[in-house]
Amino acid sequence: MSSNELIKIFLSEDVGAPAYKVVRALAERGSASAIELSRHTGLAKSTMSALVAELKDASVIIEPEPSKDARASSRGRPAVQLSLNPQAGTSVGVLPGPDFIGIALVDAAHGIRDERSVEIKPNYSVDQGVEAVAELVQQAYAATGLQRETLLGVGLAMPGPFNHRTGVMLRSTLLPNWVDLDIGAHFAKRFDVPVIADNESNCAAIAEMTWGAALGQQDFLYAKFDEGVGGAVIVDGRVLRGALGAAGEIGHFMVDPDGPLCTCGSRGCLEAMMRWDAIVRPARALFGENITFPQIAGRAQEGDPGCVRLISDAAAAAGRALAGICAVLNPPLIVVGGRYVLAGEVFLRAMQESFDRHFHIRDQTDGGSVTPIVAGTFSNNRDSTLGAVGLVLREKPFTRSA
Amino acid sequence: MSSNELIKIFLSEDVGAPAYKVVRALAERGSASAIELSRHTGLAKSTMSALVAELKDASVIIEPEPSKDARASSRGRPAVQLSLNPQAGTSVGVLPGPDFIGIALVDAAHGIRDERSVEIKPNYSVDQGVEAVAELVQQAYAATGLQRETLLGVGLAMPGPFNHRTGVMLRSTLLPNWVDLDIGAHFAKRFDVPVIADNESNCAAIAEMTWGAALGQQDFLYAKFDEGVGGAVIVDGRVLRGALGAAGEIGHFMVDPDGPLCTCGSRGCLEAMMRWDAIVRPARALFGENITFPQIAGRAQEGDPGCVRLISDAAAAAGRALAGICAVLNPPLIVVGGRYVLAGEVFLRAMQESFDRHFHIRDQTDGGSVTPIVAGTFSNNRDSTLGAVGLVLREKPFTRSA
Repeated sequence: MSSNELIKIFLSEDVGAPAYKVVRALAERGSASAIELSRHTGLAKSTMSALVAELKDASVIIEPEPSKDARASSRGRPAVQLSLNPQAGTSVGVLPGPDFIGIALVDAAHGIRDERSVEIKPNYSVDQGVEAVAELVQQAYAATGLQRETLLGVGLAMPGPFNHRTGVMLRSTLLPNWVDLDIGAHFAKRFDVPVIADNESNCAAIAEMTWGAALGQQDFLYAKFDEGVGGAVIVDGRVLRGALGAAGEIGHFMVDPDGPLCTCGSRGCLEAMMRWDAIVRPARALFGENITFPQIAGRAQEGDPGCVRLISDAAAAAGRALAGICAVLNPPLIVVGGRYVLAGEVFLRAMQESFDRHFHIRDQTDGGSVTPIVAGTFSNNRDSTLGAVGLVLREKPFTRSA
Repeated sequence: MSSNELIKIFLSEDVGAPAYKVVRALAERGSASAIELSRHTGLAKSTMSALVAELKDASVIIEPEPSKDARASSRGRPAVQLSLNPQAGTSVGVLPGPDFIGIALVDAAHGIRDERSVEIKPNYSVDQGVEAVAELVQQAYAATGLQRETLLGVGLAMPGPFNHRTGVMLRSTLLPNWVDLDIGAHFAKRFDVPVIADNESNCAAIAEMTWGAALGQQDFLYAKFDEGVGGAVIVDGRVLRGALGAAGEIGHFMVDPDGPLCTCGSRGCLEAMMRWDAIVRPARALFGENITFPQIAGRAQEGDPGCVRLISDAAAAAGRALAGICAVLNPPLIVVGGRYVLAGEVFLRAMQESFDRHFHIRDQTDGGSVTPIVAGTFSNNRDSTLGAVGLVLREKPFTRSA
């Protein structure tokens, strides 16, 4: 059966096989020409054309119809783009939230086919979460007409520092019952496919690389400013995980040694200065007990001076922290996600100005910033859920079903 | 001729060829067993044994006599270690200092065969530097009996931020006449071999990976505390260079926004707080006009309270900066070089304590530091000169002779 052939190659242990290399390169990129595939896999062009023909015959890869735009705009003959067969391979991404569970169903050609979520009682167990996900997954396949048998793997976006070596979440205020457990094994038992989990900020960065503001970028810093502060470091197209899976934790970058106490036990961490609570508390005196962070962000964008000040002070701290981080990483781009972005330019411009003031390289021939800071494409939790799918498409599994 | 065969493979453009992969893997590692080479190159074991036999016949690789220790200590038959033929390939590393030039001559099996230097008048030109290096290189080959024809390449350790894409040093207080020039081309013209240049802190990190405290480490942070402050980030065995070649510039990590002015135009950079001048100035009031940094470091190690305070305050700032950097990188190890290490534990322990206080992950089952900070093996300028040789052995040339 053709669908089996794609799955067989995708899950093969023979990582040196030419078919494996081509399937994995396409899974990561969504689409590519045969010439690009030669470059990415290191396979000779002659080998590649024979292999492509063979994989087409087996319905593993397809040659999608070029769009009218592409045909109209191209000078000469455009390079034929190849994709994995979207009918033959699908992936599911899962975000287990504090009181909801979200999933996304994506085909092997990177088509986002279904996104849905369900409410769940807080402090739910892993097994309760697994059952809720199974229900959502069934609904998603039914709604799209895709085949459940094409499932290549399940990705999990974990709301806490996740050690990819042990497969265990170190701590989490949102999902306390999920800490210190082999979560992948619980999911693998139910789904009988490889399961890959990672920290949700790493997932968000992968979503931006796969579909969003960092499409095609091999190196960038991702920063998420939401209820808490997180981030990810992308080097050479890969998420940097670090010795304990804690790389990219920009929330615990210390900005002020005399600053407010942080949940981690340090003082003056960026998260301690920027988490919603630190913004909402002082705002209550001016705007009443019921003011929320999204309201403050909205009012800042409308020009309310007090809200502008709260957001721009936070942005200045963020810009300083990012400048320190970039002194060490020197990425060509910073992508910013999370709901601070709701404050728009009030937040982004103040952060860029603070960054440029503190970053040690200022000269740029075209007068622009040496390190541009841009808003990510995805907001709310969509980035983590989609990025969890990206884990399946881009990473070798850390945990596998037996 | 056998020597030509090694050079031919090492400098080949056919980077997918099995022989190229084996030669480059050995150049990087110094020695490895056939099984390790299979793992590193992805070549099948059967392919490997035929290839090894062939390369031995061509005198490209050798099987060195195991040391007596290795024979005595090994249980069962030890894996045979292979090396490149040290008679057939050699590399030269160069450190152009402000008033001296140092070189090292190393064979392809990583044997350090000769190190020498010569004084030179400050503000010398690149071409004057090239001539002085040529003279030193000739002396080194004559002293060792090695053949000049075996030279695989020349590595240059540059005392300033170096853009590896353009081959140009952006700025340098020590070598002002070398800024904004294609330095590699000047050297390549004289030596007729590939020339590779990089920032001297990156070179120092490579020296620690190749011969020193980071031997076998694939990921670590390198920090150099000397007259100035520099560093390097090693990810997956590679130096992270960044968009402008400025990755690893931990000297411009901002510690205090109200701190002293830095040469880069920011305030409170780590370098502004730690460079020798910032330590020596306040020491003059207590110890006289002629006190030097190495004297302060020595007195601190002997317990002089004022010198201990100066060094440990600097160490505390360094520990804070490293904790911030590690919140983002989470490396398993920090290696420290430069002449601050002359102050010994006064410096290292104060830095580790400050780091542990500010780093957000504290739990470690064995009670040790989550991120150990260790002194590097090489002091003074030896690290940069040897690391420049490491550039030749580990990196593809950025600049080549015509």
